[in-house]
Amino acid sequence: MTGLTAPGGDADPPAGAEGPARRRGRPPRTESAGTRDRILEAAREVFSERGYDKASVRGIAKAAGVDSALVHHYFGTKEQVFEAAVEVAFAPALAMRDSVVTGPIEEAGERMTRILIGLWENPVTRAPLLAIVRSAVNNETAAAVFRRLIAGQLLRHIAARVGRPDAELRAELAAAQLVGVAMVRYVIKVEPLASADPEQIIRRVAPVVQGHLTGP
Amino acid sequence: MTGLTAPGGDADPPAGAEGPARRRGRPPRTESAGTRDRILEAAREVFSERGYDKASVRGIAKAAGVDSALVHHYFGTKEQVFEAAVEVAFAPALAMRDSVVTGPIEEAGERMTRILIGLWENPVTRAPLLAIVRSAVNNETAAAVFRRLIAGQLLRHIAARVGRPDAELRAELAAAQLVGVAMVRYVIKVEPLASADPEQIIRRVAPVVQGHLTGP
Repeated sequence: MTGLTAPGGDADPPAGAEGPARRRGRPPRTESAGTRDRILEAAREVFSERGYDKASVRGIAKAAGVDSALVHHYFGTKEQVFEAAVEVAFAPALAMRDSVVTGPIEEAGERMTRILIGLWENPVTRAPLLAIVRSAVNNETAAAVFRRLIAGQLLRHIAARVGRPDAELRAELAAAQLVGVAMVRYVIKVEPLASADPEQIIRRVAPVVQGHLTGP
Repeated sequence: MTGLTAPGGDADPPAGAEGPARRRGRPPRTESAGTRDRILEAAREVFSERGYDKASVRGIAKAAGVDSALVHHYFGTKEQVFEAAVEVAFAPALAMRDSVVTGPIEEAGERMTRILIGLWENPVTRAPLLAIVRSAVNNETAAAVFRRLIAGQLLRHIAARVGRPDAELRAELAAAQLVGVAMVRYVIKVEPLASADPEQIIRRVAPVVQGHLTGP
Protein backbone atom coordinates (compact mmCIF):
# COMPACT_ATOMS: atom_id res chain seq x y z
CA MET A 1 0.00 0.00 0.00
CA THR A 2 3.03 2.33 -0.07
CA GLY A 3 2.18 3.00 -3.70
CA LEU A 4 -0.92 4.94 -2.63
CA THR A 5 0.95 8.16 -1.93
CA ALA A 6 4.28 7.76 -3.72
CA PRO A 7 4.26 9.02 -7.32
CA GLY A 8 5.87 5.82 -8.65
CA GLY A 9 8.08 2.93 -7.79
CA ASP A 10 5.75 -0.06 -7.52
CA ALA A 11 7.05 -2.23 -10.32
CA ASP A 12 4.30 -4.82 -10.27
CA PRO A 13 1.66 -4.28 -7.59
CA PRO A 14 -0.89 -6.96 -6.83
CA ALA A 15 -4.09 -6.81 -8.86
CA GLY A 16 -6.09 -5.59 -5.87
CA ALA A 17 -3.92 -2.53 -5.20
CA GLU A 18 -5.26 0.89 -5.93
CA GLY A 19 -3.96 4.47 -5.89
CA PRO A 20 -6.62 7.01 -4.90
CA ALA A 21 -4.03 9.55 -3.76
CA ARG A 22 -2.25 9.56 -7.13
CA ARG A 23 -4.90 11.12 -9.31
CA ARG A 24 -3.09 14.34 -10.15
CA GLY A 25 -0.36 14.34 -12.84
CA ARG A 26 1.11 11.58 -14.92
CA PRO A 27 3.37 8.98 -13.38
CA PRO A 28 6.91 8.68 -14.77
CA ARG A 29 7.03 6.87 -18.09
CA THR A 30 9.40 4.08 -17.19
CA GLU A 31 8.32 0.54 -17.85
CA SER A 32 9.07 -0.55 -14.29
CA ALA A 33 7.17 2.21 -12.53
CA GLY A 34 3.66 3.49 -12.90
CA THR A 35 2.47 1.26 -15.73
CA ARG A 36 -0.59 0.40 -13.70
CA ASP A 37 -1.16 4.08 -12.93
CA ARG A 38 -0.73 5.01 -16.56
CA ILE A 39 -3.39 2.48 -17.51
CA LEU A 40 -5.67 3.81 -14.77
CA GLU A 41 -5.15 7.37 -15.95
CA ALA A 42 -5.90 6.32 -19.53
CA ALA A 43 -8.97 4.40 -18.33
CA ARG A 44 -10.30 7.49 -16.57
CA GLU A 45 -9.81 9.56 -19.70
CA VAL A 46 -11.40 7.00 -22.01
CA PHE A 47 -14.37 6.37 -19.71
CA SER A 48 -14.79 10.15 -19.28
CA GLU A 49 -14.79 10.80 -22.98
CA ARG A 50 -16.68 7.80 -24.28
CA GLY A 51 -18.72 6.50 -21.33
CA TYR A 52 -18.77 2.89 -20.19
CA ASP A 53 -20.67 1.52 -23.19
CA LYS A 54 -18.35 2.85 -25.87
CA ALA A 55 -15.10 2.42 -23.94
CA SER A 56 -13.08 -0.73 -24.61
CA VAL A 57 -10.07 -2.41 -23.02
CA ARG A 58 -8.37 -2.11 -26.39
CA GLY A 59 -9.03 1.65 -26.47
CA ILE A 60 -7.73 2.07 -22.92
CA ALA A 61 -4.61 0.06 -23.76
CA LYS A 62 -4.02 2.21 -26.84
CA ALA A 63 -4.42 5.44 -24.84
CA ALA A 64 -1.94 4.14 -22.26
CA GLY A 65 0.49 2.98 -24.95
CA VAL A 66 0.46 -0.63 -23.78
CA ASP A 67 -0.85 -3.97 -25.01
CA SER A 68 -4.43 -4.98 -24.13
CA ALA A 69 -3.03 -8.04 -22.37
CA LEU A 70 -1.32 -5.78 -19.85
CA VAL A 71 -4.61 -4.08 -19.03
CA HIS A 72 -6.16 -7.51 -18.44
CA HIS A 73 -3.12 -8.50 -16.39
CA TYR A 74 -3.44 -5.55 -14.03
CA PHE A 75 -7.21 -5.21 -13.80
CA GLY A 76 -9.10 -8.05 -15.45
CA THR A 77 -12.31 -7.28 -17.33
CA LYS A 78 -13.61 -3.93 -18.58
CA GLU A 79 -15.94 -3.86 -15.55
CA GLN A 80 -12.95 -4.27 -13.24
CA VAL A 81 -10.97 -1.53 -14.98
CA PHE A 82 -14.02 0.67 -14.62
CA GLU A 83 -14.36 -0.16 -10.94
CA ALA A 84 -10.71 0.73 -10.31
CA ALA A 85 -11.05 3.98 -12.26
CA VAL A 86 -14.24 4.88 -10.41
CA GLU A 87 -12.62 4.16 -7.05
CA VAL A 88 -9.89 6.63 -7.89
CA ALA A 89 -12.38 9.24 -9.05
CA PHE A 90 -14.49 8.50 -6.00
CA ALA A 91 -11.65 9.05 -3.52
CA PRO A 92 -12.42 12.78 -2.95
CA ALA A 93 -16.01 11.85 -2.07
CA LEU A 94 -14.64 9.72 0.73
CA ALA A 95 -13.29 12.93 2.25
CA MET A 96 -16.94 13.96 2.56
CA ARG A 97 -17.73 10.75 4.35
CA ASP A 98 -14.77 11.09 6.72
CA SER A 99 -15.69 14.68 7.48
CA VAL A 100 -19.29 13.71 8.22
CA VAL A 101 -18.22 10.76 10.31
CA THR A 102 -15.63 12.56 12.41
CA GLY A 103 -17.12 16.02 13.11
CA PRO A 104 -20.15 16.97 15.21
CA ILE A 105 -23.33 15.48 13.75
CA GLU A 106 -25.30 18.74 14.16
CA GLU A 107 -23.10 20.36 11.49
CA ALA A 108 -22.75 17.33 9.24
CA GLY A 109 -25.28 18.75 6.77
CA GLU A 110 -23.17 21.80 6.10
CA ARG A 111 -19.91 19.85 5.86
CA MET A 112 -21.46 17.33 3.46
CA THR A 113 -22.94 20.08 1.28
CA ARG A 114 -19.79 22.21 1.30
CA ILE A 115 -17.52 19.33 0.32
CA LEU A 116 -19.82 18.10 -2.43
CA ILE A 117 -20.20 21.57 -3.94
CA GLY A 118 -16.42 21.95 -3.70
CA LEU A 119 -15.86 18.70 -5.59
CA TRP A 120 -18.18 19.78 -8.39
CA GLU A 121 -16.84 23.34 -8.52
CA ASN A 122 -13.29 22.09 -9.11
CA PRO A 123 -12.86 21.04 -12.78
CA VAL A 124 -10.23 18.46 -11.78
CA THR A 125 -12.67 16.55 -9.57
CA ARG A 126 -15.75 17.42 -11.62
CA ALA A 127 -14.65 15.65 -14.79
CA PRO A 128 -14.39 12.15 -13.26
CA LEU A 129 -17.62 12.64 -11.28
CA LEU A 130 -19.38 13.58 -14.50
CA ALA A 131 -17.93 10.51 -16.18
CA ILE A 132 -19.23 8.27 -13.39
CA VAL A 133 -22.70 9.81 -13.57
CA ARG A 134 -22.82 9.49 -17.37
CA SER A 135 -21.74 5.87 -17.29
CA ALA A 136 -24.04 4.91 -14.41
CA VAL A 137 -27.05 6.49 -16.10
CA ASN A 138 -26.41 4.63 -19.33
CA ASN A 139 -25.19 1.24 -18.35
CA GLU A 140 -26.42 -1.24 -15.77
CA THR A 141 -22.95 -2.68 -15.10
CA ALA A 142 -21.58 0.79 -14.45
CA ALA A 143 -24.63 1.59 -12.30
CA ALA A 144 -23.94 -1.53 -10.21
CA VAL A 145 -20.35 -0.44 -9.59
CA PHE A 146 -21.50 3.04 -8.61
CA ARG A 147 -24.28 1.60 -6.41
CA ARG A 148 -21.84 -0.61 -4.51
CA LEU A 149 -19.51 2.32 -3.88
CA ILE A 150 -22.28 4.71 -2.76
CA ALA A 151 -23.93 2.15 -0.49
CA GLY A 152 -20.80 0.50 0.89
CA GLN A 153 -18.34 3.39 1.04
CA LEU A 154 -20.55 6.37 1.70
CA LEU A 155 -24.05 5.76 3.01
CA ARG A 156 -23.29 2.93 5.40
CA HIS A 157 -20.63 4.94 7.21
CA ILE A 158 -22.67 8.13 7.34
CA ALA A 159 -25.69 6.16 8.54
CA ALA A 160 -23.64 4.59 11.33
CA ARG A 161 -22.77 8.10 12.52
CA VAL A 162 -26.40 9.23 12.34
CA GLY A 163 -27.25 6.25 14.50
CA ARG A 164 -31.02 5.88 14.18
CA PRO A 165 -33.13 2.97 12.98
CA ASP A 166 -33.89 4.75 9.69
CA ALA A 167 -30.37 6.17 9.37
CA GLU A 168 -29.61 4.63 5.98
CA LEU A 169 -32.74 6.10 4.43
CA ARG A 170 -31.91 9.45 6.05
CA ALA A 171 -28.36 9.41 4.70
CA GLU A 172 -29.63 8.48 1.26
CA LEU A 173 -32.26 11.23 1.12
CA ALA A 174 -29.58 13.71 2.18
CA ALA A 175 -27.38 12.38 -0.62
CA ALA A 176 -30.34 12.59 -3.02
CA GLN A 177 -30.71 16.31 -2.37
CA LEU A 178 -27.03 16.79 -3.21
CA VAL A 179 -27.23 14.53 -6.27
CA GLY A 180 -30.20 16.57 -7.49
CA VAL A 181 -28.37 19.87 -7.04
CA ALA A 182 -25.35 18.45 -8.89
CA MET A 183 -27.55 17.19 -11.75
CA VAL A 184 -29.47 20.43 -12.18
CA ARG A 185 -26.52 22.81 -11.68
CA TYR A 186 -23.55 20.98 -13.19
CA VAL A 187 -24.96 18.41 -15.61
CA ILE A 188 -28.16 19.88 -17.10
CA LYS A 189 -27.14 23.44 -16.11
CA VAL A 190 -30.57 24.92 -15.48
CA GLU A 191 -30.70 28.59 -14.46
CA PRO A 192 -30.78 30.28 -12.00
CA LEU A 193 -29.07 27.45 -10.07
CA ALA A 194 -26.37 26.97 -12.70
CA SER A 195 -25.02 30.49 -12.09
CA ALA A 196 -25.89 30.89 -8.41
CA ASP A 197 -23.10 31.69 -5.95
CA PRO A 198 -21.86 28.47 -4.33
CA GLU A 199 -22.21 30.01 -0.85
CA GLN A 200 -25.84 30.85 -1.54
CA ILE A 201 -26.49 27.25 -2.53
CA ILE A 202 -24.73 25.97 0.60
CA ARG A 203 -26.80 28.32 2.78
CA ARG A 204 -30.02 26.95 1.31
CA VAL A 205 -29.16 23.30 0.89
CA ALA A 206 -27.14 22.56 4.04
CA PRO A 207 -30.12 22.91 6.43
CA VAL A 208 -32.13 20.57 4.21
CA VAL A 209 -29.35 17.98 4.22
CA GLN A 210 -29.07 18.38 7.99
CA GLY A 211 -32.84 17.93 8.31
CA HIS A 212 -32.67 14.66 6.43
CA LEU A 213 -29.86 13.42 8.67
CA THR A 214 -31.11 14.44 12.12
CA GLY A 215 -34.49 16.19 11.73
CA PRO A 216 -37.78 14.94 13.19
CA MET B 1 -55.04 21.47 -32.28
CA THR B 2 -57.95 18.99 -32.52
CA GLY B 3 -55.38 16.30 -33.24
CA LEU B 4 -54.19 16.49 -29.64
CA THR B 5 -56.90 14.23 -28.30
CA ALA B 6 -58.26 12.40 -31.35
CA PRO B 7 -56.46 9.15 -32.18
CA GLY B 8 -56.07 10.10 -35.85
CA GLY B 9 -57.54 12.11 -38.69
CA ASP B 10 -55.08 14.95 -39.15
CA ALA B 11 -53.84 14.25 -42.63
CA ASP B 12 -51.05 16.78 -42.66
CA PRO B 13 -50.73 18.81 -39.46
CA PRO B 14 -48.59 21.92 -39.40
CA ALA B 15 -44.97 21.35 -38.38
CA GLY B 16 -45.49 23.00 -35.00
CA ALA B 17 -48.39 20.73 -33.94
CA GLU B 18 -47.82 18.20 -31.23
CA GLY B 19 -49.80 15.37 -29.67
CA PRO B 20 -49.10 15.00 -25.92
CA ALA B 21 -52.42 13.22 -25.31
CA ARG B 22 -51.71 10.58 -27.94
CA ARG B 23 -48.77 8.85 -26.34
CA ARG B 24 -50.44 5.53 -25.66
CA GLY B 25 -50.96 3.01 -28.47
CA ARG B 26 -50.10 3.16 -32.13
CA PRO B 27 -52.04 5.37 -34.49
CA PRO B 28 -53.86 3.71 -37.41
CA ARG B 29 -51.51 2.73 -40.23
CA THR B 30 -53.10 4.64 -43.06
CA GLU B 31 -50.96 7.00 -45.05
CA SER B 32 -53.33 9.90 -44.58
CA ALA B 33 -53.67 9.66 -40.82
CA GLY B 34 -51.14 9.48 -38.07
CA THR B 35 -47.95 9.41 -40.10
CA ARG B 36 -46.57 12.18 -37.99
CA ASP B 37 -47.62 10.36 -34.83
CA ARG B 38 -46.07 7.16 -36.06
CA ILE B 39 -42.78 8.96 -36.63
CA LEU B 40 -43.03 10.52 -33.18
CA GLU B 41 -43.73 7.14 -31.58
CA ALA B 42 -40.78 5.62 -33.44
CA ALA B 43 -38.61 8.58 -32.41
CA ARG B 44 -39.48 8.02 -28.76
CA GLU B 45 -38.60 4.35 -29.03
CA VAL B 46 -35.34 4.96 -30.85
CA PHE B 47 -34.25 7.76 -28.49
CA SER B 48 -35.23 5.58 -25.50
CA GLU B 49 -33.24 2.62 -26.71
CA ARG B 50 -30.21 4.31 -28.21
CA GLY B 51 -30.01 7.73 -26.58
CA TYR B 52 -29.62 10.98 -28.47
CA ASP B 53 -26.05 10.37 -29.60
CA LYS B 54 -26.63 7.03 -31.25
CA ALA B 55 -30.10 7.75 -32.63
CA SER B 56 -30.37 8.93 -36.25
CA VAL B 57 -33.12 10.34 -38.43
CA ARG B 58 -32.54 7.38 -40.73
CA GLY B 59 -33.05 4.92 -37.84
CA ILE B 60 -36.22 6.71 -36.76
CA ALA B 61 -37.55 6.67 -40.33
CA LYS B 62 -36.80 2.96 -40.59
CA ALA B 63 -38.57 2.22 -37.27
CA ALA B 64 -41.59 4.19 -38.48
CA GLY B 65 -41.57 2.50 -41.87
CA VAL B 66 -41.19 5.77 -43.76
CA ASP B 67 -38.55 7.55 -45.81
CA SER B 68 -36.06 9.81 -44.00
CA ALA B 69 -37.28 12.71 -46.13
CA LEU B 70 -40.70 12.42 -44.47
CA VAL B 71 -39.13 12.72 -41.01
CA HIS B 72 -37.34 15.87 -42.15
CA HIS B 73 -40.59 17.12 -43.71
CA TYR B 74 -42.55 16.79 -40.47
CA PHE B 75 -39.90 17.72 -37.93
CA GLY B 76 -36.69 19.04 -39.50
CA THR B 77 -33.37 18.12 -37.89
CA LYS B 78 -32.59 15.34 -35.42
CA GLU B 79 -32.60 17.95 -32.66
CA GLN B 80 -36.10 19.02 -33.67
CA VAL B 81 -37.36 15.43 -33.76
CA PHE B 82 -35.87 14.99 -30.30
CA GLU B 83 -37.52 18.15 -29.04
CA ALA B 84 -40.92 16.99 -30.29
CA ALA B 85 -40.43 13.54 -28.76
CA VAL B 86 -39.33 15.04 -25.44
CA GLU B 87 -42.32 17.39 -25.40
CA VAL B 88 -44.60 14.38 -25.70
CA ALA B 89 -42.75 12.49 -22.97
CA PHE B 90 -42.71 15.63 -20.89
CA ALA B 91 -46.47 16.18 -21.08
CA PRO B 92 -47.24 14.26 -17.85
CA ALA B 93 -44.76 16.45 -15.97
CA LEU B 94 -46.87 19.44 -17.00
CA ALA B 95 -49.66 17.92 -14.92
CA MET B 96 -47.36 18.46 -11.95
CA ARG B 97 -46.91 22.07 -12.90
CA ASP B 98 -50.64 22.62 -13.35
CA SER B 99 -51.38 20.99 -10.02
CA VAL B 100 -48.81 23.14 -8.27
CA VAL B 101 -50.03 26.26 -9.98
CA THR B 102 -53.73 25.76 -9.34
CA GLY B 103 -53.94 24.30 -5.79
CA PRO B 104 -53.12 25.94 -2.45
CA ILE B 105 -49.43 26.83 -2.26
CA GLU B 106 -49.08 25.45 1.29
CA GLU B 107 -49.65 21.94 -0.06
CA ALA B 108 -47.75 22.34 -3.32
CA GLY B 109 -44.78 20.39 -1.96
CA GLU B 110 -46.83 17.28 -1.40
CA ARG B 111 -48.63 17.54 -4.73
CA MET B 112 -45.37 18.04 -6.60
CA THR B 113 -43.73 15.11 -4.83
CA ARG B 114 -46.72 12.81 -5.21
CA ILE B 115 -47.09 13.45 -8.92
CA LEU B 116 -43.39 13.05 -9.63
CA ILE B 117 -43.17 9.77 -7.69
CA GLY B 118 -46.30 8.63 -9.54
CA LEU B 119 -44.73 9.38 -12.93
CA TRP B 120 -41.60 7.39 -12.06
CA GLU B 121 -43.55 4.51 -10.48
CA ASN B 122 -45.56 3.99 -13.66
CA PRO B 123 -43.45 2.08 -16.25
CA VAL B 124 -45.33 3.77 -19.10
CA THR B 125 -44.24 7.25 -18.01
CA ARG B 126 -40.92 6.12 -16.51
CA ALA B 127 -39.44 4.86 -19.78
CA PRO B 128 -39.57 8.19 -21.64
CA LEU B 129 -38.39 10.10 -18.55
CA LEU B 130 -35.42 7.78 -18.29
CA ALA B 131 -34.70 8.30 -21.97
CA ILE B 132 -34.72 12.07 -21.52
CA VAL B 133 -32.40 11.88 -18.51
CA ARG B 134 -29.99 9.56 -20.33
CA SER B 135 -29.87 11.75 -23.41
CA ALA B 136 -29.54 14.99 -21.45
CA VAL B 137 -26.69 13.61 -19.34
CA ASN B 138 -24.78 12.47 -22.42
CA ASN B 139 -25.34 15.10 -25.01
CA GLU B 140 -25.21 18.88 -24.82
CA THR B 141 -27.84 19.37 -27.55
CA ALA B 142 -30.23 17.08 -25.70
CA ALA B 143 -29.40 18.84 -22.43
CA ALA B 144 -30.25 22.19 -24.02
CA VAL B 145 -33.67 20.88 -25.12
CA PHE B 146 -34.33 19.50 -21.64
CA ARG B 147 -33.10 22.73 -20.02
CA ARG B 148 -35.45 24.87 -22.13
CA LEU B 149 -38.40 22.66 -21.21
CA ILE B 150 -37.62 22.58 -17.48
CA ALA B 151 -36.97 26.31 -17.26
CA GLY B 152 -39.71 27.50 -19.60
CA GLN B 153 -42.48 24.97 -19.02
CA LEU B 154 -42.00 24.01 -15.39
CA LEU B 155 -39.94 26.29 -13.18
CA ARG B 156 -41.12 29.62 -14.53
CA HIS B 157 -44.76 28.74 -13.90
CA ILE B 158 -44.15 27.25 -10.48
CA ALA B 159 -41.99 30.24 -9.52
CA ALA B 160 -44.76 32.64 -10.57
CA ARG B 161 -47.10 30.83 -8.18
CA VAL B 162 -44.53 30.95 -5.35
CA GLY B 163 -44.34 34.69 -5.97
CA ARG B 164 -41.17 35.76 -4.13
CA PRO B 165 -38.05 37.50 -5.40
CA ASP B 166 -36.04 34.27 -5.18
CA ALA B 167 -38.93 32.10 -6.41
CA GLU B 168 -37.09 30.62 -9.41
CA LEU B 169 -34.21 29.44 -7.25
CA ARG B 170 -36.72 28.03 -4.73
CA ALA B 171 -38.62 26.16 -7.43
CA GLU B 172 -35.40 24.80 -8.83
CA LEU B 173 -34.06 23.58 -5.47
CA ALA B 174 -37.42 21.87 -4.88
CA ALA B 175 -37.10 20.25 -8.30
CA ALA B 176 -33.48 19.30 -7.48
CA GLN B 177 -34.61 17.32 -4.44
CA LEU B 178 -37.07 15.41 -6.63
CA VAL B 179 -34.51 14.91 -9.41
CA GLY B 180 -32.11 13.51 -6.83
CA VAL B 181 -34.67 11.09 -5.43
CA ALA B 182 -35.51 9.94 -8.96
CA MET B 183 -31.82 9.47 -9.81
CA VAL B 184 -30.99 7.51 -6.66
CA ARG B 185 -34.18 5.42 -6.55
CA TYR B 186 -35.06 4.81 -10.19
CA VAL B 187 -31.86 5.29 -12.19
CA ILE B 188 -28.95 4.17 -9.96
CA LYS B 189 -31.29 2.14 -7.69
CA VAL B 190 -29.44 2.53 -4.40
CA GLU B 191 -30.97 0.78 -1.38
CA PRO B 192 -32.82 1.34 0.89
CA LEU B 193 -34.47 4.09 -1.16
CA ALA B 194 -34.86 1.87 -4.24
CA SER B 195 -37.22 -0.48 -2.36
CA ALA B 196 -38.82 2.01 0.03
CA ASP B 197 -42.59 2.37 0.04
CA PRO B 198 -43.60 5.33 -2.19
CA GLU B 199 -45.80 6.73 0.59
CA GLN B 200 -42.85 6.70 2.99
CA ILE B 201 -40.79 8.65 0.47
CA ILE B 202 -43.58 11.16 -0.05
CA ARG B 203 -43.94 11.61 3.73
CA ARG B 204 -40.24 12.46 4.04
CA VAL B 205 -39.65 14.39 0.85
CA ALA B 206 -42.83 16.48 0.54
CA PRO B 207 -42.04 18.70 3.58
CA VAL B 208 -38.55 19.32 2.18
CA VAL B 209 -39.96 20.32 -1.22
CA GLN B 210 -42.47 22.55 0.56
CA GLY B 211 -39.67 24.08 2.59
CA HIS B 212 -37.79 25.00 -0.56
CA LEU B 213 -40.91 26.59 -2.08
CA THR B 214 -42.25 28.59 0.86
CA GLY B 215 -39.93 28.09 3.88
CA PRO B 216 -37.94 30.84 5.58
